[in-house]
Amino acid sequence: MRKLFKATLLLLTAIQITSAQSVDYNSYNLMPWPKEINLGQAEFIVKEDFTVSIPKESTKRLRAAATRFLRRLSGRTGVFFEKGFPQQKENTPSLIINVKRRGKLAIEENESYTLNISVNNIMLESETDIGAIRGLETLLQLATPKKDHFYLPELVIRDSPRFPWRGLMIDVARHYQPIEVLKRNLDAMAAVKLNVFHWHLTDDQGFRIESKSHPKLHELGSDGQYYTQEEIKEIVQYAADRGIRVVPELDVPGHASAILTAYPELGSKKDTKYNIERYAGVFDPTLDPTNEKTYELLSDLFKEVASLFPDPYVHIGGDENEGKHWDENPEIMAFKKKHGFESNHDLQTYFNLRLQKILEKLDKKLVGWEEIMTPDMPTSAVIHSWRGVEEGLQPGESLIIAAKKGHYSILSTGYYIDRMHDIAHHYLVDPLPKSSDLTKEEQKKVLGGEVTMWGELVTPLTIDSRIWPRTAAIAERFWSPASVVDITHMRKRLSVISFRLEELGLTHLKNRNVILRNIANGYDIDALIKLAKVCQPLQKYSRNKGGTEYKSYSPFTLFADACTTDAPDAFKFDERVNTFVVNPKMSKKLLEPMLHQWVENHEGLLELNGKTPLVSELLELSSALKDISAFFLKVLKQEGVSKVDSNEFMKLMTKVKEPYADVEIVAYGTFMKLFTYLKKNEL
Amino acid sequence: MRKLFKATLLLLTAIQITSAQSVDYNSYNLMPWPKEINLGQAEFIVKEDFTVSIPKESTKRLRAAATRFLRRLSGRTGVFFEKGFPQQKENTPSLIINVKRRGKLAIEENESYTLNISVNNIMLESETDIGAIRGLETLLQLATPKKDHFYLPELVIRDSPRFPWRGLMIDVARHYQPIEVLKRNLDAMAAVKLNVFHWHLTDDQGFRIESKSHPKLHELGSDGQYYTQEEIKEIVQYAADRGIRVVPELDVPGHASAILTAYPELGSKKDTKYNIERYAGVFDPTLDPTNEKTYELLSDLFKEVASLFPDPYVHIGGDENEGKHWDENPEIMAFKKKHGFESNHDLQTYFNLRLQKILEKLDKKLVGWEEIMTPDMPTSAVIHSWRGVEEGLQPGESLIIAAKKGHYSILSTGYYIDRMHDIAHHYLVDPLPKSSDLTKEEQKKVLGGEVTMWGELVTPLTIDSRIWPRTAAIAERFWSPASVVDITHMRKRLSVISFRLEELGLTHLKNRNVILRNIANGYDIDALIKLAKVCQPLQKYSRNKGGTEYKSYSPFTLFADACTTDAPDAFKFDERVNTFVVNPKMSKKLLEPMLHQWVENHEGLLELNGKTPLVSELLELSSALKDISAFFLKVLKQEGVSKVDSNEFMKLMTKVKEPYADVEIVAYGTFMKLFTYLKKNEL
Repeated sequence: MRKLFKATLLLLTAIQITSAQSVDYNSYNLMPWPKEINLGQAEFIVKEDFTVSIPKESTKRLRAAATRFLRRLSGRTGVFFEKGFPQQKENTPSLIINVKRRGKLAIEENESYTLNISVNNIMLESETDIGAIRGLETLLQLATPKKDHFYLPELVIRDSPRFPWRGLMIDVARHYQPIEVLKRNLDAMAAVKLNVFHWHLTDDQGFRIESKSHPKLHELGSDGQYYTQEEIKEIVQYAADRGIRVVPELDVPGHASAILTAYPELGSKKDTKYNIERYAGVFDPTLDPTNEKTYELLSDLFKEVASLFPDPYVHIGGDENEGKHWDENPEIMAFKKKHGFESNHDLQTYFNLRLQKILEKLDKKLVGWEEIMTPDMPTSAVIHSWRGVEEGLQPGESLIIAAKKGHYSILSTGYYIDRMHDIAHHYLVDPLPKSSDLTKEEQKKVLGGEVTMWGELVTPLTIDSRIWPRTAAIAERFWSPASVVDITHMRKRLSVISFRLEELGLTHLKNRNVILRNIANGYDIDALIKLAKVCQPLQKYSRNKGGTEYKSYSPFTLFADACTTDAPDAFKFDERVNTFVVNPKMSKKLLEPMLHQWVENHEGLLELNGKTPLVSELLELSSALKDISAFFLKVLKQEGVSKVDSNEFMKLMTKVKEPYADVEIVAYGTFMKLFTYLKKNEL
Repeated sequence: MRKLFKATLLLLTAIQITSAQSVDYNSYNLMPWPKEINLGQAEFIVKEDFTVSIPKESTKRLRAAATRFLRRLSGRTGVFFEKGFPQQKENTPSLIINVKRRGKLAIEENESYTLNISVNNIMLESETDIGAIRGLETLLQLATPKKDHFYLPELVIRDSPRFPWRGLMIDVARHYQPIEVLKRNLDAMAAVKLNVFHWHLTDDQGFRIESKSHPKLHELGSDGQYYTQEEIKEIVQYAADRGIRVVPELDVPGHASAILTAYPELGSKKDTKYNIERYAGVFDPTLDPTNEKTYELLSDLFKEVASLFPDPYVHIGGDENEGKHWDENPEIMAFKKKHGFESNHDLQTYFNLRLQKILEKLDKKLVGWEEIMTPDMPTSAVIHSWRGVEEGLQPGESLIIAAKKGHYSILSTGYYIDRMHDIAHHYLVDPLPKSSDLTKEEQKKVLGGEVTMWGELVTPLTIDSRIWPRTAAIAERFWSPASVVDITHMRKRLSVISFRLEELGLTHLKNRNVILRNIANGYDIDALIKLAKVCQPLQKYSRNKGGTEYKSYSPFTLFADACTTDAPDAFKFDERVNTFVVNPKMSKKLLEPMLHQWVENHEGLLELNGKTPLVSELLELSSALKDISAFFLKVLKQEGVSKVDSNEFMKLMTKVKEPYADVEIVAYGTFMKLFTYLKKNEL
């Protein structure tokens, strides 16, 4: 390899990106960014004769991964490869994959790889086939177009993850997600080197596992929407083929409406008819921890789960049990007294410890949401930290406490993507911030983190657009060195990673227009697209509280479902305003087209209105955007802001701030910034 | 019901559509058009309190269908229904479904229904639950938006199908299609009242069924891409839930490369290593009809198939065996002589009759491509007519012969949608044209037709865009009265049906931009979209012969894959030219914007070129389009065509005619028409 520049990532900061080698590094949209990358100047050109060799004693997993790699590289480059399958006896292969052994799906497993691209060939070397699978994804991200060909840049990458537990949780209870949704998300997870799929399988709104020991569970608790055991095995295999562990969650003793719909006799409130819950929220139905039959059922169930999921970890939930039905039940109260339990928390500890024993017999370790961390809980239990400011706690507080106590722990606070925060918000949350005072030994207890996709407001149509692309950036947090924190660089890479995920069937980009076509009833959707690009769904959980209250069967085909976080035109406008306030004379003409567009767009929406009833509620948004845009156009033209304008502005901004149709205009802050500048500078 | 207008479909011709009631009929995008429709003037308004009642003794199938109906109606209208499930004891339901009995999945079954919509409620009545399922699709198509609400029009529909066998064949051998592809296509089939899914499961390029008796078949013959028996059962159940029969096809004795890859000893050419075929075409590997072991394997295999597929029919293929390997094998020649067979055709008849006996024992009836129709074949065999002009025969010839002989028959000639003909071409092909001289009894033998989706050039990314929306129009041919032939009316309705299919997850519209984003490597795709809208993939099979030769693992992510038949802008331009030649002065301004657009679009493509190698081969197309457009703009401006222009025109048109990148500009004929007019009229 010639002329290699050394520039390991630990040194790569925002400043260095703009330095001499910046052009090169900026050409490659790697995510997660590798631990160490040394870039050369030559190119390996992708041509018809491209071949891949795999070891003679290759695992089926590696062979399948190499075949998928060939399909994706061919599909992306349009090059017709002569050999469509990896070879085991190839004379001069283009890509040589060397692997020492089959990888285990375990926390301690080696996922590192080395990638060495030269003009004539590519070496991918790793201890395990899982490492090679990670490296193949890096290689695909490196395929770069020029005018006449795609090439892979000369380089050496030495890469390994910062955290061993890099997860995505998908809640399939609030809305069932068919296995093809899970499969494409597993593909996307593998593309960004995530390695744990946490499958939230039961909740008040549905019990989604076929139980052979207690079939009433899925028959009565799922509206017919559950995974057969064959399907579960298929997903576990599909994940394993991509080096992804699957951790199942059965959320108990709370969140139990669906279980109790099938087995009301195990509920803490007696003689009640339980029903599958249709709303979102925290509900009272809770398993009776004093009933031995509860443990009999759970014992049978965990036995089935243990045989379906080879992973050593099982998640028992354990969150948000407020114990209302326990307090109301005299027998449970008596039980507490008899056992000397002072609080419901003690009673839940008793319950958790019973479960812990059941799981121990099955050779499984327990994971639970942070509420399970009580003094008696053995440190073998993994603590899943989730509460934060909204729950009156410091974010990640429980993670630190758990590590100090000697528990393994994983962080989800800060990664609640269903709250619809923008990407920068999540990207900077670190499971092990520099500020933490953990010892080195304690730091090792922090296994990593999990993105949580709660399912109240998502269906198969929209779920991808909530998970992606933001989860790719969070995956970088879990994999890459802590020093990789340049938001501008991340955003630039993320925009490429995002559309590349489409090759795996992800629908986050393409389904927006599907929703808008439905709203427009087949008429032109341009005006809707333009409005959607500056709006976002209400953040946190205000979508489902403030205005509409959603049931599981409510329509999720609305304008809010077509909008995403990080609204692109709002972001673009903000960037332009930032340029403007630095150099108003030169960049005024950047602002005006966007403002004009928003003024004109209202006409387009008015035209649609009248053809379909789904547009009328958007007119308020669109008209607020039009009015404020017209205001700024007037001000920019007059080149001055009078006192009258100031009052007019505040009146208009009141309208801009107002949410409609469960969305809000994101540019509020930018408008404020622009106005403040204009007023101060009286241009 | 008040003021009903009687206008049964048999009377509804193009002329009547423009008559007094035309506005009403044109408001409803029904497809297939019902047998009889009587439209009123009132409206049933879709509101939150919408409820559905189903009979107390309802089938699970009907309950599930009614639930899906509620989800789709809610998703489409955005109305939050208070009750999300069908009720069995509802006081005043909005939609009352009355069904007499469970329907059987059989050719003779009653699929008729009556729909009666009044201001206050809706009655859907049918003999079978399958009829009700058909009626629910009609009802969904009737949901019509106004400014403030969706409504269902007051009407009475009495509907039943013209043909009992209305099929779609999907070839999953040339390219494997995951079950989610099949499921969404089954959903779409149900939406347009198709009732037979013909599953072409084996061919030279793959054996796609898990065989428990002969696992080598799927292990060695599928590259790991096959359906497990569980998945097959799942698809059969999914289809049954939508009133769709599943007819499996194992194509023998030709098309056997994949089978012989696993069992070379059953091949007609001995001591050969067979391989899964990667190219498209007709190949020589053929089962040995003289080897008893061939029948042993097929007997085991059909036994498995019989238990997986409850339908009474099994398709044995039987097409395109040219017998080359038979001719080359002296033992097979000796066998022929010994049995007194004069031709390979006789030998194949022997083979088919052996199969017929195997199937008979399994209580299955045989279907085969028309080549199986030999004198000795019992008339219980169904003849599948497929050959036409390309094969030197009259289209549908074998269908008529079969019916006269007493065979049931089905038509696929004319419905080969992989040939990429436009929709009008297929729409007018009738399984029972008026010109046929069949007796009434013989006519009953013509069961209907099947759309055939051969898989050489489609992947999960593109298959929907080849099947839909054209198959919806062919489905109308199979269901609706023969008199429904107005192409303009069909096109208008089809454009709505097409985007409505998106609610079932069909990808024919949304995947175009996925391909174009890949080609543009994330840059703006506007120029590519505009070019794609006037291009179509090469027709018939010239895409895979003339230029590129595709293997099964070649990339299908190319510009040709983003183009479809019935290129919308070519069609629009043609319509405008048709208007222009009638009224040139008034409508000249309709032509110019389109011509200007094509001129400017070339700039956009030039800008993309250089950023990605996948654009360069499109420049020839785009520049031809630009040049001819510029020519017409010049002529229209000068308002005259000189001799010089005429020569220039022909030169430019040579370029327009030339295919590039496996696509062609569709507007060729329109340009010619416009030029001829301009020249003749010397404006």
